[in-house]
Amino acid sequence: MKKIEHIGIAVKDLEVSNDLFAALFGKPHYKIEAVESEGVRTSFFENGPNKIELLEATSADSPIAKFIEKKGEGIHHIAFAVDDIETELKRLEGEGFTILNKIPKKGADNKLVAFLHPKSTNGVLIELCQDIKP
Amino acid sequence: MKKIEHIGIAVKDLEVSNDLFAALFGKPHYKIEAVESEGVRTSFFENGPNKIELLEATSADSPIAKFIEKKGEGIHHIAFAVDDIETELKRLEGEGFTILNKIPKKGADNKLVAFLHPKSTNGVLIELCQDIKP
Repeated sequence: MKKIEHIGIAVKDLEVSNDLFAALFGKPHYKIEAVESEGVRTSFFENGPNKIELLEATSADSPIAKFIEKKGEGIHHIAFAVDDIETELKRLEGEGFTILNKIPKKGADNKLVAFLHPKSTNGVLIELCQDIKP
Repeated sequence: MKKIEHIGIAVKDLEVSNDLFAALFGKPHYKIEAVESEGVRTSFFENGPNKIELLEATSADSPIAKFIEKKGEGIHHIAFAVDDIETELKRLEGEGFTILNKIPKKGADNKLVAFLHPKSTNGVLIELCQDIKP
């Protein structure tokens, strides 16, 4: 794991939160991207080597809608950048972590992603992400 | 704000979680530090330009003990690195954020720190931190 690639934050209203985080960082988001398979609309902010990803549910059965219903708005996951997601998943499985996506899936921002179950990581939902090579 | 300086994670047992995060990152923590004024013992892991700070309560009235009682173990705060914390706090106050520490206080890892109230930041507890100059 090379760095925190991004922190995902669950929000109720992407436009309201875009304004809020633009005020926080002193600059606007650099893109909006829908991930239909996850039922989310995302917005990305750059912060030096890291990003913040705001996540708004686009349907009532989206994982983000369920998260907000249960816990309210707030931090949803931490994503770490890796060079080779399959090698890293094998290593982590060997260490006893529970892998939610043994076959990585396509996420936002041109990444292959996989999640670790928070029950194996102190209640923290952890995502691994690797750039999709052209 | 220059980067995510660290993510703070509330844990019940620092030794257990040190082992867990060492397995996650493939390398051990680089220091343990108590912050008596906050009632916490902290452990730091390096991850490229970023850090993970594990926080264990050392007394029942520590904010971390209360957090775990209410929400369980998990992500407690995001800290952003700033060059000049006082200038940044003034800017954020002007933007309407609620500043919890108008006078920054000494935190772990040789930093001056101040927090923004999560009610003004989408439920995310945000810390600003600046290196204490020698």
